Amino acid sequence: MIYGFVGMGLMGGSLAKAIRKYVVVNTDAIYGFDISKVVLEDAMLDGTIDAMFYPKKQDSSVDANDYPVKKMLAKCDIVFVCLYPSASLHFIVKYQNYFKSGAIVTDISGVKTKLCEGLENDFKRSDVSVIPAHPMAGSEREGYTHSSSEMFKGRNYIFVPLQHTNKNKITILKEIARNIGFTHIIETTAKIHDHKIAFTSQLCHVIAASLVCSAEDTSITKFGGGSFEDLTRIAMINVPLWTELFTADKATLVQHIENFEESLRTIKTAIEKEDIHDMSTILESVRKKRIEMAMH
Amino acid sequence: MIYGFVGMGLMGGSLAKAIRKYVVVNTDAIYGFDISKVVLEDAMLDGTIDAMFYPKKQDSSVDANDYPVKKMLAKCDIVFVCLYPSASLHFIVKYQNYFKSGAIVTDISGVKTKLCEGLENDFKRSDVSVIPAHPMAGSEREGYTHSSSEMFKGRNYIFVPLQHTNKNKITILKEIARNIGFTHIIETTAKIHDHKIAFTSQLCHVIAASLVCSAEDTSITKFGGGSFEDLTRIAMINVPLWTELFTADKATLVQHIENFEESLRTIKTAIEKEDIHDMSTILESVRKKRIEMAMH
Repeated sequence: MIYGFVGMGLMGGSLAKAIRKYVVVNTDAIYGFDISKVVLEDAMLDGTIDAMFYPKKQDSSVDANDYPVKKMLAKCDIVFVCLYPSASLHFIVKYQNYFKSGAIVTDISGVKTKLCEGLENDFKRSDVSVIPAHPMAGSEREGYTHSSSEMFKGRNYIFVPLQHTNKNKITILKEIARNIGFTHIIETTAKIHDHKIAFTSQLCHVIAASLVCSAEDTSITKFGGGSFEDLTRIAMINVPLWTELFTADKATLVQHIENFEESLRTIKTAIEKEDIHDMSTILESVRKKRIEMAMH
Repeated sequence: MIYGFVGMGLMGGSLAKAIRKYVVVNTDAIYGFDISKVVLEDAMLDGTIDAMFYPKKQDSSVDANDYPVKKMLAKCDIVFVCLYPSASLHFIVKYQNYFKSGAIVTDISGVKTKLCEGLENDFKRSDVSVIPAHPMAGSEREGYTHSSSEMFKGRNYIFVPLQHTNKNKITILKEIARNIGFTHIIETTAKIHDHKIAFTSQLCHVIAASLVCSAEDTSITKFGGGSFEDLTRIAMINVPLWTELFTADKATLVQHIENFEESLRTIKTAIEKEDIHDMSTILESVRKKRIEMAMH
Protein backbone atom coordinates (compact mmCIF):
# COMPACT_ATOMS: atom_id res chain seq x y z
CA MET A 1 0.00 0.00 0.00
CA ILE A 2 1.53 3.31 -1.13
CA TYR A 3 0.47 6.64 0.39
CA GLY A 4 0.99 9.76 -1.69
CA PHE A 5 1.02 13.34 -0.42
CA VAL A 6 0.43 16.25 -2.76
CA GLY A 7 1.69 19.27 -0.84
CA MET A 8 3.97 18.77 2.15
CA GLY A 9 3.08 21.82 4.23
CA LEU A 10 1.84 21.84 7.81
CA MET A 11 -1.07 19.48 7.09
CA GLY A 12 0.49 17.24 4.45
CA GLY A 13 3.63 16.97 6.53
CA SER A 14 1.73 16.17 9.74
CA LEU A 15 -0.46 13.54 8.04
CA ALA A 16 2.59 11.92 6.45
CA LYS A 17 4.50 11.91 9.76
CA ALA A 18 1.51 10.44 11.62
CA ILE A 19 0.96 7.73 9.01
CA ARG A 20 4.67 6.91 9.08
CA LYS A 21 4.58 6.62 12.88
CA TYR A 22 1.22 4.96 13.48
CA VAL A 23 0.16 3.18 10.28
CA VAL A 24 2.81 1.88 7.89
CA VAL A 25 5.33 -0.86 8.63
CA ASN A 26 7.22 -1.27 5.33
CA THR A 27 9.86 1.11 4.08
CA ASP A 28 8.51 1.86 0.60
CA ALA A 29 5.21 3.31 1.64
CA ILE A 30 5.08 7.10 1.61
CA TYR A 31 5.70 9.35 -1.40
CA GLY A 32 5.70 13.12 -1.33
CA PHE A 33 5.14 15.72 -4.03
CA ASP A 34 5.79 19.39 -3.42
CA ILE A 35 6.80 22.42 -5.47
CA SER A 36 9.67 22.90 -3.02
CA LYS A 37 12.53 20.44 -3.39
CA VAL A 38 14.03 21.70 -0.11
CA VAL A 39 10.94 20.64 1.84
CA LEU A 40 11.02 17.20 0.23
CA GLU A 41 14.68 16.79 1.10
CA ASP A 42 13.88 17.57 4.74
CA ALA A 43 11.11 14.96 4.66
CA MET A 44 13.46 12.39 3.12
CA LEU A 45 16.15 13.15 5.70
CA ASP A 46 13.85 12.80 8.73
CA GLY A 47 12.45 9.56 7.32
CA THR A 48 8.89 10.78 6.70
CA ILE A 49 8.83 9.97 2.97
CA ASP A 50 10.48 7.21 0.98
CA ALA A 51 10.49 8.94 -2.39
CA MET A 52 10.17 12.52 -3.55
CA PHE A 53 8.63 14.09 -6.63
CA TYR A 54 8.89 17.72 -7.65
CA PRO A 55 8.57 19.80 -10.79
CA LYS A 56 12.01 19.92 -12.43
CA LYS A 57 11.64 23.60 -13.07
CA GLN A 58 11.26 25.09 -9.56
CA ASP A 59 8.58 27.71 -9.87
CA SER A 60 5.46 28.41 -7.85
CA SER A 61 3.07 26.45 -10.03
CA VAL A 62 2.21 22.78 -9.61
CA ASP A 63 1.52 22.62 -13.34
CA ALA A 64 5.04 23.42 -14.43
CA ASN A 65 6.59 20.28 -15.78
CA ASP A 66 4.09 17.81 -14.39
CA TYR A 67 5.70 14.55 -15.38
CA PRO A 68 6.96 13.85 -11.80
CA VAL A 69 3.55 14.27 -10.17
CA LYS A 70 1.90 12.03 -12.79
CA LYS A 71 4.55 9.41 -12.13
CA MET A 72 3.84 9.54 -8.40
CA LEU A 73 0.04 9.41 -8.75
CA ALA A 74 0.29 6.28 -10.92
CA LYS A 75 1.86 4.40 -7.97
CA CYS A 76 -0.28 5.55 -5.05
CA ASP A 77 -3.18 3.63 -3.49
CA ILE A 78 -4.22 6.49 -1.24
CA VAL A 79 -3.58 10.11 -2.22
CA PHE A 80 -3.88 12.99 0.25
CA VAL A 81 -4.24 16.26 -1.64
CA CYS A 82 -3.03 18.83 0.89
CA LEU A 83 -3.37 22.10 -1.03
CA TYR A 84 -5.47 25.23 -0.55
CA PRO A 85 -9.20 24.66 -1.24
CA SER A 86 -9.48 25.86 -4.85
CA ALA A 87 -6.11 24.36 -5.78
CA SER A 88 -7.32 20.99 -4.44
CA LEU A 89 -10.31 20.90 -6.78
CA HIS A 90 -8.18 22.07 -9.69
CA PHE A 91 -5.55 19.41 -9.01
CA ILE A 92 -7.92 16.45 -8.63
CA VAL A 93 -9.85 17.32 -11.78
CA LYS A 94 -6.76 18.12 -13.84
CA TYR A 95 -4.88 14.92 -12.93
CA GLN A 96 -7.88 12.60 -12.77
CA ASN A 97 -6.56 10.40 -15.55
CA TYR A 98 -3.29 9.73 -13.76
CA PHE A 99 -4.61 8.21 -10.53
CA LYS A 100 -4.07 4.46 -10.13
CA SER A 101 -7.15 2.36 -10.74
CA GLY A 102 -8.80 1.54 -7.41
CA ALA A 103 -7.12 4.45 -5.64
CA ILE A 104 -8.65 6.54 -2.88
CA VAL A 105 -8.17 10.30 -3.23
CA THR A 106 -8.96 12.62 -0.34
CA ASP A 107 -8.30 16.25 0.57
CA ILE A 108 -8.06 18.42 3.68
CA SER A 109 -9.77 21.65 2.80
CA GLY A 110 -11.92 23.62 5.19
CA VAL A 111 -14.71 24.43 2.71
CA LYS A 112 -16.56 21.67 0.94
CA THR A 113 -19.58 22.83 -1.09
CA LYS A 114 -17.65 24.18 -4.09
CA LEU A 115 -15.25 21.24 -4.00
CA CYS A 116 -18.02 18.64 -3.92
CA GLU A 117 -20.02 20.36 -6.68
CA GLY A 118 -16.91 20.61 -8.83
CA LEU A 119 -16.07 16.95 -8.30
CA GLU A 120 -19.63 15.73 -8.93
CA ASN A 121 -19.59 17.63 -12.24
CA ASP A 122 -16.05 17.19 -13.49
CA PHE A 123 -14.52 14.05 -12.01
CA LYS A 124 -15.22 11.18 -14.41
CA ARG A 125 -13.24 8.17 -13.13
CA SER A 126 -15.59 5.57 -11.61
CA ASP A 127 -12.67 3.31 -10.65
CA VAL A 128 -11.17 5.97 -8.37
CA SER A 129 -12.88 6.97 -5.09
CA VAL A 130 -12.66 10.64 -4.26
CA ILE A 131 -13.62 11.23 -0.64
CA PRO A 132 -13.61 14.91 0.37
CA ALA A 133 -12.68 15.25 4.02
CA HIS A 134 -11.64 17.77 6.64
CA PRO A 135 -9.15 16.74 9.31
CA MET A 136 -9.81 19.48 11.89
CA ALA A 137 -6.40 20.40 13.17
CA GLY A 138 -3.95 23.14 12.52
CA SER A 139 -1.49 25.53 14.01
CA GLU A 140 -0.70 29.22 13.82
CA ARG A 141 2.75 28.11 12.62
CA GLU A 142 2.92 27.12 8.96
CA GLY A 143 4.91 24.79 6.78
CA TYR A 144 6.57 21.41 6.96
CA THR A 145 8.98 22.64 9.66
CA HIS A 146 6.09 22.89 12.10
CA SER A 147 4.33 19.67 11.11
CA SER A 148 3.95 16.99 13.78
CA SER A 149 2.78 13.39 13.96
CA GLU A 150 0.92 14.27 17.19
CA MET A 151 -1.26 17.05 15.77
CA PHE A 152 -4.39 14.91 15.47
CA LYS A 153 -4.76 13.51 18.99
CA GLY A 154 -8.33 13.85 20.16
CA ARG A 155 -9.36 15.87 17.10
CA ASN A 156 -12.39 15.79 14.80
CA TYR A 157 -12.21 14.32 11.25
CA ILE A 158 -15.19 15.09 9.05
CA PHE A 159 -15.95 13.08 5.91
CA VAL A 160 -18.14 14.57 3.21
CA PRO A 161 -18.81 11.70 0.78
CA LEU A 162 -19.89 12.33 -2.78
CA GLN A 163 -23.10 10.78 -4.14
CA HIS A 164 -21.43 7.62 -5.40
CA THR A 165 -18.63 7.28 -2.87
CA ASN A 166 -17.92 3.62 -2.10
CA LYS A 167 -18.68 3.01 1.62
CA ASN A 168 -15.84 0.49 1.98
CA LYS A 169 -13.31 3.08 0.91
CA ILE A 170 -14.57 5.50 3.56
CA THR A 171 -14.08 2.73 6.13
CA ILE A 172 -10.42 2.46 5.12
CA LEU A 173 -9.85 6.19 5.62
CA LYS A 174 -11.69 6.17 8.95
CA GLU A 175 -9.47 3.37 10.17
CA ILE A 176 -6.37 5.40 9.26
CA ALA A 177 -7.91 8.46 10.97
CA ARG A 178 -8.42 6.53 14.20
CA ASN A 179 -4.91 5.13 14.08
CA ILE A 180 -3.29 8.54 13.77
CA GLY A 181 -5.18 9.96 16.75
CA PHE A 182 -8.55 11.35 15.64
CA THR A 183 -11.25 10.48 18.17
CA HIS A 184 -14.36 12.05 16.67
CA ILE A 185 -14.97 10.89 13.13
CA ILE A 186 -18.22 11.81 11.46
CA GLU A 187 -19.86 11.90 8.05
CA THR A 188 -22.01 14.79 6.95
CA THR A 189 -23.08 16.77 3.88
CA ALA A 190 -21.06 19.58 2.31
CA LYS A 191 -23.80 22.05 3.17
CA ILE A 192 -23.93 21.13 6.88
CA HIS A 193 -20.12 20.99 7.04
CA ASP A 194 -19.71 24.46 5.59
CA HIS A 195 -22.43 25.97 7.78
CA LYS A 196 -20.91 24.55 10.99
CA ILE A 197 -17.28 25.23 10.07
CA ALA A 198 -18.05 28.82 9.11
CA PHE A 199 -19.03 29.17 12.77
CA THR A 200 -16.37 27.15 14.63
CA SER A 201 -13.49 28.12 12.39
CA GLN A 202 -13.97 31.08 10.04
CA LEU A 203 -15.98 33.19 12.52
CA CYS A 204 -13.38 32.51 15.24
CA HIS A 205 -10.59 33.67 12.94
CA VAL A 206 -12.55 36.82 12.05
CA ILE A 207 -13.08 37.56 15.77
CA ALA A 208 -9.43 36.92 16.65
CA ALA A 209 -8.28 39.18 13.81
CA SER A 210 -10.72 41.93 14.84
CA LEU A 211 -9.56 41.75 18.45
CA VAL A 212 -5.90 42.14 17.48
CA CYS A 213 -6.92 44.91 15.09
CA SER A 214 -8.62 46.84 17.88
CA ALA A 215 -5.64 46.62 20.28
CA GLU A 216 -4.11 50.03 20.98
CA ASP A 217 -0.54 48.79 20.84
CA THR A 218 1.53 45.61 20.76
CA SER A 219 2.73 45.96 24.37
CA ILE A 220 -0.78 45.08 25.58
CA THR A 221 0.42 41.53 26.28
CA LYS A 222 2.36 42.90 29.29
CA PHE A 223 -1.10 43.13 30.80
CA GLY A 224 -2.24 39.72 29.58
CA GLY A 225 -3.39 36.95 31.87
CA GLY A 226 -3.89 34.27 29.23
CA SER A 227 -7.35 35.17 27.90
CA PHE A 228 -6.21 37.63 25.24
CA GLU A 229 -3.40 35.27 24.23
CA ASP A 230 -5.80 32.30 23.88
CA LEU A 231 -8.36 34.32 21.92
CA THR A 232 -5.85 35.70 19.44
CA ARG A 233 -3.27 32.95 18.84
CA ILE A 234 -5.06 32.10 15.58
CA ALA A 235 -4.72 35.71 14.43
CA MET A 236 -1.14 34.82 13.37
CA ILE A 237 -3.03 33.93 10.27
CA ASN A 238 -1.95 32.33 6.96
CA VAL A 239 -3.22 35.25 4.86
CA PRO A 240 -3.80 33.72 1.38
CA LEU A 241 -5.40 30.58 2.87
CA TRP A 242 -7.81 32.46 5.09
CA THR A 243 -8.66 35.06 2.47
CA GLU A 244 -9.82 32.12 0.37
CA LEU A 245 -11.70 30.49 3.28
CA PHE A 246 -13.44 33.75 4.27
CA THR A 247 -14.83 34.31 0.78
CA ALA A 248 -15.66 30.68 -0.16
CA ASP A 249 -19.15 30.95 1.32
CA LYS A 250 -19.33 34.55 2.39
CA ALA A 251 -23.11 34.65 2.87
CA THR A 252 -22.98 32.01 5.62
CA LEU A 253 -19.98 33.61 7.31
CA VAL A 254 -21.54 37.07 7.25
CA GLN A 255 -24.72 35.62 8.79
CA HIS A 256 -22.66 34.06 11.61
CA ILE A 257 -20.83 37.36 12.14
CA GLU A 258 -24.15 39.18 12.40
CA ASN A 259 -25.57 36.69 14.90
CA PHE A 260 -22.43 37.15 16.96
CA GLU A 261 -22.72 40.96 16.70
CA GLU A 262 -26.24 40.69 18.04
CA SER A 263 -25.20 38.59 21.05
CA LEU A 264 -22.39 41.05 21.72
CA ARG A 265 -24.84 43.98 21.58
CA THR A 266 -27.13 42.24 24.08
CA ILE A 267 -24.32 41.78 26.59
CA LYS A 268 -23.03 45.32 25.96
CA THR A 269 -26.47 46.73 26.69
CA ALA A 270 -26.71 44.81 29.97
CA ILE A 271 -23.29 46.22 30.97
CA GLU A 272 -24.24 49.78 29.94
CA LYS A 273 -27.43 49.59 32.00
CA GLU A 274 -25.58 47.84 34.86
CA ASP A 275 -28.47 45.41 34.70
CA ILE A 276 -27.07 42.81 37.12
CA HIS A 277 -30.13 40.56 36.79
CA ASP A 278 -29.98 40.45 32.97
CA MET A 279 -26.23 40.01 32.96
CA SER A 280 -26.35 37.17 35.49
CA THR A 281 -29.09 35.40 33.51
CA ILE A 282 -27.12 35.63 30.27
CA LEU A 283 -23.81 34.61 31.84
CA GLU A 284 -25.37 31.70 33.74
CA SER A 285 -26.87 30.36 30.52
CA VAL A 286 -23.56 30.87 28.65
CA ARG A 287 -21.66 29.05 31.39
CA LYS A 288 -24.11 26.13 31.30
CA LYS A 289 -24.07 25.98 27.50
CA ARG A 290 -20.26 25.99 27.29
CA ILE A 291 -19.93 23.27 29.97
CA GLU A 292 -22.42 21.16 28.00
CA MET A 293 -20.39 21.79 24.80
CA ALA A 294 -17.27 20.45 26.51
CA MET A 295 -19.10 17.18 27.13
CA HIS A 296 -19.75 16.41 23.45
CA MET B 1 7.50 35.19 58.78
CA ILE B 2 3.81 34.24 58.79
CA TYR B 3 1.72 34.38 55.60
CA GLY B 4 -2.05 34.77 55.98
CA PHE B 5 -4.65 34.04 53.32
CA VAL B 6 -8.11 35.56 53.52
CA GLY B 7 -10.20 33.43 51.15
CA MET B 8 -8.90 30.04 50.05
CA GLY B 9 -10.53 29.77 46.62
CA LEU B 10 -8.76 29.21 43.30
CA MET B 11 -6.43 32.20 43.74
CA GLY B 12 -5.90 32.11 47.50
CA GLY B 13 -5.37 28.37 47.32
CA SER B 14 -2.92 28.60 44.42
CA LEU B 15 -0.90 31.41 46.03
CA ALA B 16 -0.74 29.51 49.33
CA LYS B 17 0.32 26.27 47.58
CA ALA B 18 2.98 28.11 45.55
CA ILE B 19 4.36 29.90 48.60
CA ARG B 20 4.41 26.61 50.51
CA LYS B 21 6.30 24.92 47.67
CA TYR B 22 8.67 27.66 46.54
CA VAL B 23 9.08 30.15 49.41
CA VAL B 24 8.69 28.95 52.99
CA VAL B 25 10.92 26.49 54.79
CA ASN B 26 9.53 26.35 58.32
CA THR B 27 6.37 24.51 59.30
CA ASP B 28 4.48 27.29 61.08
CA ALA B 29 4.29 29.71 58.19
CA ILE B 30 0.95 29.71 56.40
CA TYR B 31 -2.44 30.48 57.92
CA GLY B 32 -5.74 30.32 56.11
CA PHE B 33 -9.07 31.99 56.73
CA ASP B 34 -12.18 31.01 54.81
CA ILE B 35 -15.92 30.96 55.41
CA SER B 36 -15.87 27.26 54.53
CA LYS B 37 -14.42 25.00 57.18
CA VAL B 38 -14.41 22.10 54.69
CA VAL B 39 -12.03 23.95 52.34
CA LEU B 40 -9.69 24.75 55.24
CA GLU B 41 -9.67 21.12 56.33
CA ASP B 42 -8.65 20.12 52.79
CA ALA B 43 -5.84 22.69 52.89
CA MET B 44 -4.70 21.40 56.30
CA LEU B 45 -4.77 17.80 55.09
CA ASP B 46 -2.72 18.44 51.94
CA GLY B 47 -0.19 20.44 53.94
CA THR B 48 -0.84 23.84 52.34
CA ILE B 49 -1.70 25.66 55.57
CA ASP B 50 -0.45 25.21 59.11
CA ALA B 51 -3.43 26.71 60.93
CA MET B 52 -7.02 27.41 60.00
CA PHE B 53 -9.42 30.16 61.01
CA TYR B 54 -13.12 30.29 60.19
CA PRO B 55 -16.27 31.96 61.49
CA LYS B 56 -17.75 29.69 64.16
CA LYS B 57 -21.22 30.23 62.75
CA GLN B 58 -20.94 28.86 59.18
CA ASP B 59 -22.87 31.30 57.06
CA SER B 60 -22.02 33.09 53.85
CA SER B 61 -20.74 36.28 55.44
CA VAL B 62 -17.16 36.92 56.49
CA ASP B 63 -18.49 39.31 59.13
CA ALA B 64 -20.37 36.72 61.12
CA ASN B 65 -18.45 36.05 64.28
CA ASP B 66 -15.19 37.68 63.30
CA TYR B 67 -13.07 36.80 66.30
CA PRO B 68 -11.14 34.07 64.42
CA VAL B 69 -10.13 36.31 61.50
CA LYS B 70 -8.97 39.05 63.87
CA LYS B 71 -6.91 36.49 65.74
CA MET B 72 -5.26 35.39 62.48
CA LEU B 73 -4.56 38.91 61.22
CA ALA B 74 -2.77 39.80 64.45
CA LYS B 75 -0.17 37.11 63.73
CA CYS B 76 0.51 37.60 60.00
CA ASP B 77 3.43 39.50 58.49
CA ILE B 78 2.05 39.29 54.95
CA VAL B 79 -1.68 39.05 54.28
CA PHE B 80 -3.09 38.08 50.89
CA VAL B 81 -6.73 39.16 50.68
CA CYS B 82 -8.14 36.84 48.02
CA LEU B 83 -11.77 37.92 47.82
CA TYR B 84 -13.93 39.46 45.09
CA PRO B 85 -13.00 43.10 44.32
CA SER B 86 -15.57 44.99 46.42
CA ALA B 87 -15.28 42.48 49.27
CA SER B 88 -11.51 43.04 49.31
CA LEU B 89 -11.86 46.79 49.89
CA HIS B 90 -14.54 46.23 52.48
CA PHE B 91 -12.42 43.66 54.32
CA ILE B 92 -9.18 45.67 54.42
CA VAL B 93 -10.94 48.81 55.64
CA LYS B 94 -13.11 47.01 58.17
CA TYR B 95 -10.28 45.04 59.76
CA GLN B 96 -7.56 47.68 59.46
CA ASN B 97 -7.08 47.88 63.20
CA TYR B 98 -6.35 44.17 63.52
CA PHE B 99 -3.35 43.88 61.16
CA LYS B 100 0.00 43.33 62.85
CA SER B 101 2.19 46.44 63.01
CA GLY B 102 4.67 46.37 60.11
CA ALA B 103 2.52 43.96 58.10
CA ILE B 104 2.17 43.95 54.32
CA VAL B 105 -1.40 43.58 53.03
CA THR B 106 -2.07 42.86 49.37
CA ASP B 107 -5.00 41.75 47.24
CA ILE B 108 -5.63 40.00 43.91
CA SER B 109 -8.53 41.82 42.36
CA GLY B 110 -8.83 42.56 38.65
CA VAL B 111 -10.07 46.16 39.03
CA LYS B 112 -8.04 48.71 40.92
CA THR B 113 -9.34 52.27 40.66
CA LYS B 114 -12.20 51.92 43.16
CA LEU B 115 -10.02 49.84 45.49
CA CYS B 116 -7.16 52.34 45.46
CA GLU B 117 -9.48 55.34 45.96
CA GLY B 118 -11.21 53.57 48.82
CA LEU B 119 -7.92 52.70 50.48
CA GLU B 120 -6.43 56.20 50.04
CA ASN B 121 -9.53 57.62 51.73
CA ASP B 122 -10.35 55.09 54.39
CA PHE B 123 -7.25 53.16 55.38
CA LYS B 124 -5.62 54.98 58.28
CA ARG B 125 -2.79 52.74 59.55
CA SER B 126 0.60 54.20 58.59
CA ASP B 127 2.45 51.26 60.16
CA VAL B 128 0.79 48.77 57.76
CA SER B 129 1.65 48.72 54.03
CA VAL B 130 -1.27 48.03 51.78
CA ILE B 131 -0.06 47.16 48.27
CA PRO B 132 -2.87 46.58 45.77
CA ALA B 133 -1.79 44.03 43.16
CA HIS B 134 -3.08 41.82 40.38
CA PRO B 135 -1.51 38.41 39.86
CA MET B 136 -2.71 37.70 36.31
CA ALA B 137 -3.63 34.06 36.34
CA GLY B 138 -6.82 32.10 36.59
CA SER B 139 -8.76 29.14 35.37
CA GLU B 140 -12.25 28.41 34.14
CA ARG B 141 -12.44 25.97 37.05
CA GLU B 142 -13.16 27.54 40.41
CA GLY B 143 -12.40 26.88 44.02
CA TYR B 144 -9.66 25.43 46.19
CA THR B 145 -10.06 22.00 44.54
CA HIS B 146 -8.67 23.41 41.28
CA SER B 147 -5.93 25.52 42.82
CA SER B 148 -2.35 24.72 41.86
CA SER B 149 1.13 25.78 42.90
CA GLU B 150 2.09 25.91 39.20
CA MET B 151 -0.55 28.42 38.07
CA PHE B 152 1.82 31.39 37.98
CA LYS B 153 4.63 30.13 35.75
CA GLY B 154 5.51 32.73 33.14
CA ARG B 155 2.61 35.00 34.13
CA ASN B 156 2.29 38.77 34.68
CA TYR B 157 2.03 40.30 38.17
CA ILE B 158 0.99 43.94 38.27
CA PHE B 159 1.55 46.12 41.32
CA VAL B 160 -0.48 49.27 41.79
CA PRO B 161 1.13 51.08 44.73
CA LEU B 162 -0.75 53.68 46.75
CA GLN B 163 0.65 57.20 47.18
CA HIS B 164 2.57 56.42 50.34
CA THR B 165 3.41 52.76 49.73
CA ASN B 166 6.83 51.89 51.14
CA LYS B 167 9.11 50.87 48.22
CA ASN B 168 10.95 48.28 50.33
CA LYS B 169 7.74 46.45 51.03
CA ILE B 170 6.97 46.23 47.29
CA THR B 171 10.42 44.71 46.80
CA ILE B 172 9.54 41.96 49.28
CA LEU B 173 6.33 41.10 47.38
CA LYS B 174 8.14 41.17 44.02
CA GLU B 175 10.72 38.73 45.34
CA ILE B 176 7.93 36.36 46.39
CA ALA B 177 6.26 36.81 42.98
CA ARG B 178 9.46 35.83 41.15
CA ASN B 179 9.96 32.82 43.42
CA ILE B 180 6.50 31.42 42.73
CA GLY B 181 6.90 31.66 38.95
CA PHE B 182 5.84 35.12 37.74
CA THR B 183 8.20 36.36 35.05
CA HIS B 184 6.76 39.76 34.15
CA ILE B 185 6.40 41.97 37.18
CA ILE B 186 5.51 45.60 36.65
CA GLU B 187 4.27 48.64 38.56
CA THR B 188 1.65 50.95 37.16
CA THR B 189 -1.21 53.26 38.16
CA ALA B 190 -4.73 52.11 38.91
CA LYS B 191 -6.03 54.05 35.91
CA ILE B 192 -3.61 52.47 33.42
CA HIS B 193 -4.14 49.04 34.97
CA ASP B 194 -7.91 49.24 34.64
CA HIS B 195 -7.78 50.56 31.08
CA LYS B 196 -5.46 47.76 29.89
CA ILE B 197 -7.14 44.98 31.82
CA ALA B 198 -10.58 45.98 30.56
CA PHE B 199 -9.13 45.13 27.14
CA THR B 200 -7.06 41.98 27.78
CA SER B 201 -9.42 40.43 30.28
CA GLN B 202 -12.96 41.87 30.51
CA LEU B 203 -13.38 42.41 26.74
CA CYS B 204 -12.13 38.86 26.05
CA HIS B 205 -14.67 37.44 28.49
CA VAL B 206 -17.45 39.49 26.87
CA ILE B 207 -16.42 38.19 23.43
CA ALA B 208 -16.18 34.57 24.59
CA ALA B 209 -19.61 34.81 26.22
CA SER B 210 -21.13 36.40 23.09
CA LEU B 211 -19.67 33.70 20.88
CA VAL B 212 -21.12 30.89 23.02
CA CYS B 213 -24.39 32.82 23.16
CA SER B 214 -24.58 32.95 19.35
CA ALA B 215 -23.95 29.21 18.87
CA GLU B 216 -26.96 27.43 17.41
CA ASP B 217 -26.60 24.39 19.63
CA THR B 218 -24.21 22.69 22.02
CA SER B 219 -23.21 19.95 19.58
CA ILE B 220 -21.26 22.50 17.56
CA THR B 221 -18.05 21.23 19.20
CA LYS B 222 -18.37 18.08 17.04
CA PHE B 223 -17.26 20.45 14.30
CA GLY B 224 -14.55 22.11 16.36
CA GLY B 225 -10.91 22.18 15.36
CA GLY B 226 -9.54 23.92 18.44
CA SER B 227 -10.24 27.56 17.58
CA PHE B 228 -13.77 27.70 18.96
CA GLU B 229 -12.66 25.78 22.04
CA ASP B 230 -9.72 28.16 22.68
CA LEU B 231 -11.85 31.26 22.17
CA THR B 232 -14.61 30.15 24.52
CA ARG B 233 -12.93 28.25 27.36
CA ILE B 234 -13.21 31.37 29.53
CA ALA B 235 -16.96 31.49 28.87
CA MET B 236 -17.31 28.85 31.63
CA ILE B 237 -17.47 31.98 33.68
CA ASN B 238 -17.67 32.62 37.43
CA VAL B 239 -20.90 34.63 37.15
CA PRO B 240 -20.93 36.79 40.32
CA LEU B 241 -17.22 37.64 39.96
CA TRP B 242 -17.48 38.68 36.33
CA THR B 243 -20.73 40.56 36.79
CA GLU B 244 -18.79 42.65 39.31
CA LEU B 245 -15.75 43.03 37.01
CA PHE B 246 -17.88 43.99 33.98
CA THR B 247 -19.60 46.82 35.83
CA ALA B 248 -16.63 48.12 37.89
CA ASP B 249 -15.56 50.51 35.12
CA LYS B 250 -18.26 50.06 32.54
CA ALA B 251 -17.42 53.17 30.50
CA THR B 252 -13.94 51.87 29.66
CA LEU B 253 -15.21 48.37 28.89
CA VAL B 254 -18.00 49.66 26.65
CA GLN B 255 -15.44 51.80 24.78
CA HIS B 256 -13.25 48.72 24.20
CA ILE B 257 -16.30 46.74 23.02
CA GLU B 258 -17.16 49.50 20.56
CA ASN B 259 -13.62 49.67 19.16
CA PHE B 260 -13.75 45.90 18.69
CA GLU B 261 -17.17 46.17 17.01
CA GLU B 262 -15.70 48.67 14.59
CA SER B 263 -12.75 46.41 13.67
CA LEU B 264 -15.19 43.55 13.21
CA ARG B 265 -17.36 45.66 10.91
CA THR B 266 -14.33 46.59 8.80
CA ILE B 267 -13.40 42.95 8.27
CA LYS B 268 -17.04 41.99 7.66
CA THR B 269 -17.32 44.64 4.97
CA ALA B 270 -14.18 43.38 3.20
CA ILE B 271 -15.64 39.86 3.24
CA GLU B 272 -19.05 41.05 1.96
CA LYS B 273 -17.39 42.92 -0.90
CA GLU B 274 -14.98 40.02 -1.53
CA ASP B 275 -12.35 42.72 -1.49
CA ILE B 276 -9.29 40.45 -1.54
CA HIS B 277 -6.86 43.38 -1.54
CA ASP B 278 -8.41 45.03 1.53
CA MET B 279 -8.74 41.72 3.32
CA SER B 280 -5.14 40.76 2.65
CA THR B 281 -3.89 44.14 3.83
CA ILE B 282 -5.86 43.91 7.08
CA LEU B 283 -4.91 40.28 7.75
CA GLU B 284 -1.22 40.88 6.97
CA SER B 285 -1.13 43.74 9.45
CA VAL B 286 -3.02 41.67 12.05
CA ARG B 287 -0.60 38.79 11.60
CA LYS B 288 2.41 41.08 12.00
CA LYS B 289 0.90 42.82 15.03
CA ARG B 290 0.08 39.55 16.81
CA ILE B 291 3.54 38.10 16.16
CA GLU B 292 5.06 41.28 17.61
CA MET B 293 2.76 40.96 20.65
CA ALA B 294 4.07 37.45 21.28
CA MET B 295 7.58 38.88 21.54
CA HIS B 296 6.84 41.18 24.49
